[in-house]
Amino acid sequence: MTQTTLPESHADLLTRPAFAHLATIRPDGSPQSNVMWFEWDGELLRFTHTSTRQKYKNLQAEPRVAVSIADPDNNYRYVEIRGTVESITEDDAQASFYRHLQERYDSVYPINDAAVRVIIAVRPTAFVVKD
Amino acid sequence: MTQTTLPESHADLLTRPAFAHLATIRPDGSPQSNVMWFEWDGELLRFTHTSTRQKYKNLQAEPRVAVSIADPDNNYRYVEIRGTVESITEDDAQASFYRHLQERYDSVYPINDAAVRVIIAVRPTAFVVKD
Repeated sequence: MTQTTLPESHADLLTRPAFAHLATIRPDGSPQSNVMWFEWDGELLRFTHTSTRQKYKNLQAEPRVAVSIADPDNNYRYVEIRGTVESITEDDAQASFYRHLQERYDSVYPINDAAVRVIIAVRPTAFVVKD
Repeated sequence: MTQTTLPESHADLLTRPAFAHLATIRPDGSPQSNVMWFEWDGELLRFTHTSTRQKYKNLQAEPRVAVSIADPDNNYRYVEIRGTVESITEDDAQASFYRHLQERYDSVYPINDAAVRVIIAVRPTAFVVKD
């Protein structure tokens, strides 16, 4: 059942450091799927990315995306989120957002590509949950 | 790096009962992402599905798909597979393929929708692996 707000029953999947499988559309109209870190602020999903890779090009041409996030402890429980890229902005000189996600995922390491790091913000339009 | 055959380094991700996040294209051109069981025979990826749901309609209109499968023990290690639906065939009267996947995933339960169960076979065209 498709809903327009995040069901409370699955809210933990967005606050825990789970992994998002992000589906984007390639220039030829075919799909691409990548495993991504994310953060949810209750309104937008944010991802760190670089401006040099295919996904960035995909999103500039087609801002509609889908994300599926499974419970790390139970893959049968998941949320699918469909939405649209609202903005792609440069991370700051220290790539502070990337560092913030590193900390969220307990995986801090040196950042060598701060100059090309961007923040992708997605506004959800539909939520589908499975148990 | 995109490859046309499955790298041996990540072959275990297709033989283990991991979960596939399947990206399909909706009729309006936007993506959809769903968590799925699968089986790999070295040539084709096969999924069980029903002929009554959105994904089935998506695949009839646009056979190109993408799948990402992460190592259940290490989500940073994953394979992305892009490919095309080669066939959608009816499962048999007992939904034997569905039952076979239930056994593969150690989750056997009664099948009530055998009449509409189909087998989706995807032929990979590209593999991308991450460690």
